[in-house]
Amino acid sequence: MRIPKHIGIIPDGNRRWAKKNGLNKEDGYKNGLDPGLEFFKLCEKVGVSEITYYGFTMDNTKRPSVQTKEFTKACIEAVNMLSNENASLLVIGNSESKMFPKELLPFTTRKKFGKGGIKVNFLVNYRWDWDLTGFPEIKSSDISRIDLIIRWGGRRRLSGFLPVQSVYADFYVVDDYWPDFKKEQFYDALKWYDMQDITLGG
Amino acid sequence: MRIPKHIGIIPDGNRRWAKKNGLNKEDGYKNGLDPGLEFFKLCEKVGVSEITYYGFTMDNTKRPSVQTKEFTKACIEAVNMLSNENASLLVIGNSESKMFPKELLPFTTRKKFGKGGIKVNFLVNYRWDWDLTGFPEIKSSDISRIDLIIRWGGRRRLSGFLPVQSVYADFYVVDDYWPDFKKEQFYDALKWYDMQDITLGG
Repeated sequence: MRIPKHIGIIPDGNRRWAKKNGLNKEDGYKNGLDPGLEFFKLCEKVGVSEITYYGFTMDNTKRPSVQTKEFTKACIEAVNMLSNENASLLVIGNSESKMFPKELLPFTTRKKFGKGGIKVNFLVNYRWDWDLTGFPEIKSSDISRIDLIIRWGGRRRLSGFLPVQSVYADFYVVDDYWPDFKKEQFYDALKWYDMQDITLGG
Repeated sequence: MRIPKHIGIIPDGNRRWAKKNGLNKEDGYKNGLDPGLEFFKLCEKVGVSEITYYGFTMDNTKRPSVQTKEFTKACIEAVNMLSNENASLLVIGNSESKMFPKELLPFTTRKKFGKGGIKVNFLVNYRWDWDLTGFPEIKSSDISRIDLIIRWGGRRRLSGFLPVQSVYADFYVVDDYWPDFKKEQFYDALKWYDMQDITLGG
């Protein structure tokens, strides 16, 4: 099976999941933490060499502060969890803003944890036009071209996710919400990707 | 029904259509011309105000010359057909290259035909990184944000289509090949778009 080198992941649907389960919207995010780690371990197992997680964007921070607080907390926790794995971690986003959590500042230069292993990028307080300013020297130049983007939560759009690295990416959508992550969804995405022809625009 | 203001169209599958119908690959393109005009008329009917057609890219011109010749011819013909409609036409792409057909040079500044009407953009010898050079002053700055992208031919990727204007676009894929265009596909895409929530990254 042809395994994508780099998978981008848009873990959407946390608030809808919370609502469906009778919780407050902001209570969805923490339920996305275990799936994030499980996803990492599956990538490790099949031999993916790079993962990019869509944490939160500058646009997202315009939401009610009770939500902003919770998704920021979840991103800090997610990065901390990943730092216990064999990963080469980088957090990318506008770290000059007060919306960027100071807890993640040490991760804004790439750091090896454990044996290094998978390159993991985590977008925090990111925005596509912030990234593109200065093109072709983009802010995310340390993130490579994406082969496969998997989005949970049913929306079929990129929502500003790494426009340069996504130009040739194959885009797979899971209708379930992110906290309902199951490893079958990951394998289904890989099976689908294996059937795509790769032309890189040619 | 909420109608998208701007639809981007990726008319893919011409070569696969030709093969399926026992023709040479390069014979598919001309069979995409009538669908292109029908698509325009449907947009006119429902009140879409801007359309962008993905003609061909610089990458595409690396294909066998018999194909390059045919898709170039089809793009010239498509633009000529649209110039008989009420449209405000612009052809965008690298016109300094010899792969850019001289017949389309007059269209590289926007021109009104008939009563003007829909803004129509046609990408010819386009490439995403050519477009982005100079960001935020991009080459395609006269093309506005896209609401809905419809791609024929089953592939779920942007293939370098207007990365800036596509950041928040909803992406609808039709499995049929472009020359098999049917107006029901257009209406199905509109119905699907009507069910999407529009957040523009928020």
